[in-house]
Amino acid sequence: MISVEDAAQIVLDNTKALEPRKIDIKESLGFYLAKDVVSDMDMPPFNRSAMDGYAVIAGDVASPPAKLKVIETITAGMQPECCVEAGKAAKIMTGAIVPEGADSVIMVEDTEPVCNGTNVKVLKDIKKGKNIALMGEDMRKGQVVLKARKKIRPQEVGVLASVGVKEVDVFRKPSIGIISTGDELIEIGEELKPGKIRNSNSYSLAAQAMRVVDDVEIIGIAADNKETITSMIKSGLEKDALILSGGVSMGDYDFVGEVLKELGVEVFFEKVALRPGKPTVFGKHNNTLLFALPGNPVATFVTFELFVLPAIRKMMGSEKCESPLIKAAIEIDYKAKKKRREFRPACVRQNSSGLTVAPVEWHGSADLLSTTNANCLIVVPENLEKFEKGQMVDVMLLDDPF
Amino acid sequence: MISVEDAAQIVLDNTKALEPRKIDIKESLGFYLAKDVVSDMDMPPFNRSAMDGYAVIAGDVASPPAKLKVIETITAGMQPECCVEAGKAAKIMTGAIVPEGADSVIMVEDTEPVCNGTNVKVLKDIKKGKNIALMGEDMRKGQVVLKARKKIRPQEVGVLASVGVKEVDVFRKPSIGIISTGDELIEIGEELKPGKIRNSNSYSLAAQAMRVVDDVEIIGIAADNKETITSMIKSGLEKDALILSGGVSMGDYDFVGEVLKELGVEVFFEKVALRPGKPTVFGKHNNTLLFALPGNPVATFVTFELFVLPAIRKMMGSEKCESPLIKAAIEIDYKAKKKRREFRPACVRQNSSGLTVAPVEWHGSADLLSTTNANCLIVVPENLEKFEKGQMVDVMLLDDPF
Repeated sequence: MISVEDAAQIVLDNTKALEPRKIDIKESLGFYLAKDVVSDMDMPPFNRSAMDGYAVIAGDVASPPAKLKVIETITAGMQPECCVEAGKAAKIMTGAIVPEGADSVIMVEDTEPVCNGTNVKVLKDIKKGKNIALMGEDMRKGQVVLKARKKIRPQEVGVLASVGVKEVDVFRKPSIGIISTGDELIEIGEELKPGKIRNSNSYSLAAQAMRVVDDVEIIGIAADNKETITSMIKSGLEKDALILSGGVSMGDYDFVGEVLKELGVEVFFEKVALRPGKPTVFGKHNNTLLFALPGNPVATFVTFELFVLPAIRKMMGSEKCESPLIKAAIEIDYKAKKKRREFRPACVRQNSSGLTVAPVEWHGSADLLSTTNANCLIVVPENLEKFEKGQMVDVMLLDDPF
Repeated sequence: MISVEDAAQIVLDNTKALEPRKIDIKESLGFYLAKDVVSDMDMPPFNRSAMDGYAVIAGDVASPPAKLKVIETITAGMQPECCVEAGKAAKIMTGAIVPEGADSVIMVEDTEPVCNGTNVKVLKDIKKGKNIALMGEDMRKGQVVLKARKKIRPQEVGVLASVGVKEVDVFRKPSIGIISTGDELIEIGEELKPGKIRNSNSYSLAAQAMRVVDDVEIIGIAADNKETITSMIKSGLEKDALILSGGVSMGDYDFVGEVLKELGVEVFFEKVALRPGKPTVFGKHNNTLLFALPGNPVATFVTFELFVLPAIRKMMGSEKCESPLIKAAIEIDYKAKKKRREFRPACVRQNSSGLTVAPVEWHGSADLLSTTNANCLIVVPENLEKFEKGQMVDVMLLDDPF
C-alpha cells in the first residue's frame, strides 16, 4: 500500500502531454497553449485617445478658458489628415488616432462648442499626455504575450484575438472511456430486481471528466465474467485514458486485476493508503492510462479527483496538475483515528473571520447523496487523532465552492 | 449614475428563469434542476455487504477462533437462497444482499477457509451490524433527494442515475448573441490598417458566456452607422440575451443608445458608478435582455462578470446568481481615491497565513493583457482613501483562482 502522494506522483510521472494541434479560437476555451504566442503588433498600434473630446496642446489650455479652432473631426478607425498646431484642436472620439502635434486629449465634458462647432472653448487645463494611451504601452510587437502551457480562459481568448491568432496551437485533449463492472449493476432505464442497483458511477465519472474534456464515452457495464471484462477493456484501450470502476476488491469475482495482467497492462500500484478509495489501480498499456477505481460511488468520485483529474490536466498540457488545497478553520471538533489518509466530504464557506469548513453528514463510501451537500473534501492526515474546533485544515475544493 | 448594487439588483429583478425542458442525463452537467427529484427506491435497496467476507451471526464468533459451515456463496447481484443459522455462514461479496439470519459480515482477511472452503475459520470477533449497510440508510423511497434549483454537478449526476432519472427536468439555458461596434474594428484575419484594431471583445465575451452556456453566436461587427447597428441589433433580439460592446460612450458616432430607443428597448440604466465600466447599459425588449457594455476590453470583461453572468445564472434557474466574494489580506499598501467602485485585476494565492491578494501591473481599461496575470478582481469601495497592507479586502474570483 502506498501513500496518496506517492500514488499521485507515479501517475504524473507516467503521464505526458498529448501532441499539439491547431484549433479555431472560438473552440479554444479551456485548452492549454502548446506554443508561446507572440504579438504581431504594438498595442495600442498608435497613440490612442482614451476619451471622447478634443486633441490639444496642453500649453494652449494652461489658463482656461481657452478658445481653439477645430481643424477636423477624427473618428475611431480613420486616419487624421491634419496636424494640431498652437491655437488649434481636433475633435476626437475614443479609440481614434491622436493627431500629430497634439499632446493630450481634453474630455468633451470639459469643453463647449463655439461658433457652430468650428471652434471649441476649453474650460479646464490639462496635464500633458492626459487621456492618451501611448503606442505599445500594453504590448510590443514581437513580445511573448502568452506563454506555452498557459490555460486559455476568456481573457486569454481576447488577447489571442487582438494579436490576430485565429488558429491556436494547443495540446490535444484526451479521449476518455468509462466501464463499470459488477453483476449487481443495471442500466438506468432497466427494471430493478432484488440484489440489483443502478449503474451510477459511469454517469458521475463521465460528468467529472466532461468538466474539462469533450470526448467521453460510456462504454458500458461489464458483467463479472472474464470474457466480457476482457473484451470491454480491450476496446477501451483505444482511448487515451480508460477508467473502470468496481471489480478491484478482494472478492472471488473480481477479475479485473487478472484481466489487466493478461492484456499486458503494466500495473504501477493496486492499493493506496486512502479512505475512501483504498483499492485503486493505476496502469499503462502503450500510451493508454488505465485507472481501475473502487466501485463504491464516493470512493470512485474521490479517486477520480485525486488521480484521474491531475492526469487529464497533464495530458492537456497543464503544468499545475494536482487539485490545489486551501486552508479553512474547521467548525467542530473532529475525531479521526484513521490509519489511512481520509478525504472527508464537507462544506466550506466564507465567514467574517475567513474561510471555515464543516464535515457534512455522511454514511460512508456508498453514500453519494451526502456529497451533494458538499463543496469540498477535508484532508485528514494519516494517523491523526483529531482536529480541534478552529484548527486550520487543508481543504480540496470541488466545483462551485463559494 | 447608479451604484453597482442597484444596477445588479435591477438586472436580476428584470430577469427570470427560462422555461423547463427535459434533457438526457448525459447532457445534464451544469444545468439547474427545474423540479424536486424523488427517489423511487431505498438506497441501499437491501441490507448490503460492505466487504468481501462471510455473513455470520456475531454471537457465533464471540470467542474466536470459530469454525462455521459455509452454506452458500452470495455474489453481488444475486438473491441468497439460504438463511444463516447458528453455526453457519454464507460467503459474500461486496455489494451483495446480506442473507436472512446473518447480522454482520466478517472481512475475508479475518478468516481462513477450511476443508476446501466448505467451512470457514473466523479468527476475530465482530460487532453486531458490522460491515452491513442497512436498507434505506442513505435514501428512502419517496424522499426528495435533490431539490429544484440545485445545480447539477458530477455528484448530482450520480444521484440522478441511481434513482433512475434518465431524462432530467431542468431550466433551459439562454441563447446569447454578441455584437461588437466600432469603425476601428477589423476581424481577426483581416489586414491591420492605420487606426484599426482587431475585434477581441466578441471572442472574450463569447468565451465568458461559454463557460456556462452552449448556444453563443458572434453576430458580427457593426460599423458606426445607424442602419448597420439597427439591423444587427434587430436580428440579435431573437436571442434570450444580446450583448453589445462599444458605442455607448459620449462620442458623436455612438448611435447605440439612440437605436435602442427607436427599437423600443426599455432601458433601465445607462451609467454605473464603476471603474472600469461606467458606460454600461441594461435594457429589455419583450423577453430579451440587452446589455450594451463599454468597448474597452477590461471594462467589457468586468461588466460581463458583474451584470451578464448573474443574469445568465438566473435564466438558468440558479438561486445564487451573483458572483461570490471572498476575503483575502492585501499584500501591499494600495491607494484608491476613486469616486466609483473599482474592480481591480489581481492575483489571489494561498499562503501559510491564509489567502493573500496583490494587484497585478495594469495600465487601465484597454489593457487586457494584464488580466491574463490575474485570477481575481479586488473590490475597492467607492470613496476609499487606501487599503493598508494586511487589511482584509473583498475579492471576486475569476476562473481557476487557486
